[in-house]
Amino acid sequence: MLTSREVWVTEMGSMRLLDLLARGNITAVEVTSAFLKRAGVAQNLVNCITELLPERALAQASRLDQYYQRHKKPIGPFHGLPISVKEHIAIKGLDLNGGFCGNVGTIASMDNALVKILMDAGAIVHARTTQPQTLMQLETSNNLYGITVNPYNRNLTSGGSSGGEGALQGIRGSSFGLGSDIGGSIRSPSANNGLYGLKPTPGRIPTGMIAATAGAEGISGVLGPMSTTLEPLSLFMSTILAAKPYLNNTSVFPIPWRKEPHFPINTATGKPKQMRIGVMSWDGVVMPHPPVTRALNEVVAKLRENSDSFKVIEWEAEGSAEAWSTISGLYFADGGQEEYKGMEKAKEPILPLSKWILSQPDVPKIPGFHIQDLWKYKSAASEYKTSFSDKWLAAGIDVLLCPVGPSAAPILGTAKYWGYTSMFNLLDFPAAVFPVTKVNEKDNGAWDYTPTGGKDTENFKLWDQKSYVDAPIGLQLVARRFEDEKVLEALAIVKKQLKLPFIDASK
Amino acid sequence: MLTSREVWVTEMGSMRLLDLLARGNITAVEVTSAFLKRAGVAQNLVNCITELLPERALAQASRLDQYYQRHKKPIGPFHGLPISVKEHIAIKGLDLNGGFCGNVGTIASMDNALVKILMDAGAIVHARTTQPQTLMQLETSNNLYGITVNPYNRNLTSGGSSGGEGALQGIRGSSFGLGSDIGGSIRSPSANNGLYGLKPTPGRIPTGMIAATAGAEGISGVLGPMSTTLEPLSLFMSTILAAKPYLNNTSVFPIPWRKEPHFPINTATGKPKQMRIGVMSWDGVVMPHPPVTRALNEVVAKLRENSDSFKVIEWEAEGSAEAWSTISGLYFADGGQEEYKGMEKAKEPILPLSKWILSQPDVPKIPGFHIQDLWKYKSAASEYKTSFSDKWLAAGIDVLLCPVGPSAAPILGTAKYWGYTSMFNLLDFPAAVFPVTKVNEKDNGAWDYTPTGGKDTENFKLWDQKSYVDAPIGLQLVARRFEDEKVLEALAIVKKQLKLPFIDASK
Repeated sequence: MLTSREVWVTEMGSMRLLDLLARGNITAVEVTSAFLKRAGVAQNLVNCITELLPERALAQASRLDQYYQRHKKPIGPFHGLPISVKEHIAIKGLDLNGGFCGNVGTIASMDNALVKILMDAGAIVHARTTQPQTLMQLETSNNLYGITVNPYNRNLTSGGSSGGEGALQGIRGSSFGLGSDIGGSIRSPSANNGLYGLKPTPGRIPTGMIAATAGAEGISGVLGPMSTTLEPLSLFMSTILAAKPYLNNTSVFPIPWRKEPHFPINTATGKPKQMRIGVMSWDGVVMPHPPVTRALNEVVAKLRENSDSFKVIEWEAEGSAEAWSTISGLYFADGGQEEYKGMEKAKEPILPLSKWILSQPDVPKIPGFHIQDLWKYKSAASEYKTSFSDKWLAAGIDVLLCPVGPSAAPILGTAKYWGYTSMFNLLDFPAAVFPVTKVNEKDNGAWDYTPTGGKDTENFKLWDQKSYVDAPIGLQLVARRFEDEKVLEALAIVKKQLKLPFIDASK
Repeated sequence: MLTSREVWVTEMGSMRLLDLLARGNITAVEVTSAFLKRAGVAQNLVNCITELLPERALAQASRLDQYYQRHKKPIGPFHGLPISVKEHIAIKGLDLNGGFCGNVGTIASMDNALVKILMDAGAIVHARTTQPQTLMQLETSNNLYGITVNPYNRNLTSGGSSGGEGALQGIRGSSFGLGSDIGGSIRSPSANNGLYGLKPTPGRIPTGMIAATAGAEGISGVLGPMSTTLEPLSLFMSTILAAKPYLNNTSVFPIPWRKEPHFPINTATGKPKQMRIGVMSWDGVVMPHPPVTRALNEVVAKLRENSDSFKVIEWEAEGSAEAWSTISGLYFADGGQEEYKGMEKAKEPILPLSKWILSQPDVPKIPGFHIQDLWKYKSAASEYKTSFSDKWLAAGIDVLLCPVGPSAAPILGTAKYWGYTSMFNLLDFPAAVFPVTKVNEKDNGAWDYTPTGGKDTENFKLWDQKSYVDAPIGLQLVARRFEDEKVLEALAIVKKQLKLPFIDASK
């Protein structure tokens, strides 16, 4: 369906495309046309798009090409790059329903702050992507658009809540896009589709997506980038912060994008300063499926081989079950009223995973927490942060490596364990996801593990190599609060030195 | 009662003392003895101390003198300086009652983070200072220590809640100390006693004072410095941040103390870059008494005279009444339960100003806000921040100059208007207070003003020149969130160029 040139354009990755565009070696119109076509194909295959924007995108591409012809230079660092954006991130004049049927017809009065900065820098929004009902699922199904599935295996979820973004990029209908993350919603679809994704530190860049709960500051959702390659994540962060968004966003901290390396190159050896990597192989609650553990072990083995560059330190997780109690309570301090209201508007049925998350044991009954209960949950969050931070300092690690979840992309309807991602939302730590390998014949054979009951047993029972075949497996690298630069720098070094991914699932 | 040498030591100010100590021209024991003696006198005059620490302070001074003799250099930037600390800021092994009778006998298990950094830098805690019941008063009276009064006029309050600190420093029983501020508690006593004080941006430095409400994040109280001179405020901030307190305090942001000037000196003219100063002469709700307006007018006239250095821009306040509604509700989201519990412990009577603040119309009935009401108040806070910030950007100002309150040090029992200080707590803006003049014969004569009812009329009726005679008058300089460096730099320039204070109330 695509010409070989269109395949070439859509598969080369954002940085190479931006380079060609900046040199005038390709036009924004050609690039945009190719991505629009491929996004259309993606939509037919995996149902990942809420709205394709051909007219708008091509008109903008044409204006950018004219700009280039006139000025012989790009308008900004994203000149001519088609990008995709999760639907609940506002674009002026377009629908803004956030996955609720009752919100259809709500038109955004202005562009989201990030969208605006990216468009000013030359980006072209060519597609808007799907999200689940309530936005609180690690899968992507709602009553407006149905179910988004995984391009590598359509029995699996593309993840969520930025699952449309994940599926579209997984199929290369976009090479860069925006998602959001309050419990894993950028990282789950990044891992499930073989992508790179960054959940920034809350307050590092603007948010401003619609949310059911204005004023609810229990847990801070963040917006962040997802991409088929790593480098655009840094380009995104530096572009956003160069616009000084803290001036007119009172929830953004005035911390510029800092370029000083954390792992400077030793000029004598040509190697960067040794990185101390904590490795959390499981969270102490739910043991990951064999391919996830294999991916982690393969990475750790390579890290140990490169002992000049990396020092591996084992990290034993503590308090993960309590962390989930805390965060799941804080998600819905009002008992979920706002979510129920959103569904009630159009009398839409509640979907199973929405029902599941709203029924977590720590979610209070409507009308929600008493203030003193809310304070107890916030105190618990604060204690968890302090004990995690103290442990981190004691271990003297730079970054922490761990799974993104307890399995490869889950079988549709089964993505119920958020712990591996949500713990870093509770901690406010930046976390980046990167592809490592995929489920293959190496993962055959019996799993020699005795589950400990409850969620662990539930996850154990889901394992069956055949169900997950071809699913990409990503891992997660984490740094401390506001060390967004450090986590991306560390990931670039790890990727380069280890020659990651070991297997590119997209090939 | 003091020798002339003791007077000299206690009145020269922290920076000169630190310089003499660092050169070995005076011993820490001599300095500490002098301040202990003067603090004892202060206690007899104004009742500002909860605990004088002669043995502990002199032992520490002696150790520091030995250190100096051995190493021929100071141990740190606060080497040998006696400092005072508000009682609710923990000192290991000492009582920590926070002004509640029922808490007497609670012993602190560790030093507050700021106290520890200052002691590591050579500071000596020689006195602990009084605070009011509930800590939520702009005066200082509790059932443990009685009433702290103003050293310039004992019919007036020294302010609160850091009123012991204010009174002690007003009498020069200390030249530097720590207070806390959630609605004006550093700034009111600084203004009332002719001192300099800084309310930092929340999260810039550690807090960790005891508070009735762990987990309550409605409004962030902050700790901060108060001093008889300006320079120690910057020295304090740079010393604290040099210790990287964000590493082990999860609520502190990793922003170092930045030295780059905001108003660099033009080498041709020798003058700093012109400063754009917004001037808010009143908050639109309660008109300040004549001496406050006079102080502001005198400063503005001098700013206008120095038009190379300063551009004055009038600032019309908006939404101040609503800001008070919002913040006063958020102070006691639980309806004040924790405060009532604190008083109930020892069945102590509730004092009039505690009762007054807990009865503000926006304080919810026990058991406190429904979650959705809490969210409404937080949304209102967020909207106020945004509109204030937008207005600031539109005006293009660097700093904002305004009163610290609607009068000079209030007559005991009458400090009921927080608006001029609490608005900057709601905004999370750093604010510095500095002395300007004092109430004197210039303020005689009729006040030609027609009050607008309510709080304005209440404040109007309190005016009578004779009641406030000799009271110091300070003003407030404010910058945007995290611009703590900028507000102190701006204040240093204003002070120097205008030769402030015009009248030193302490002479």
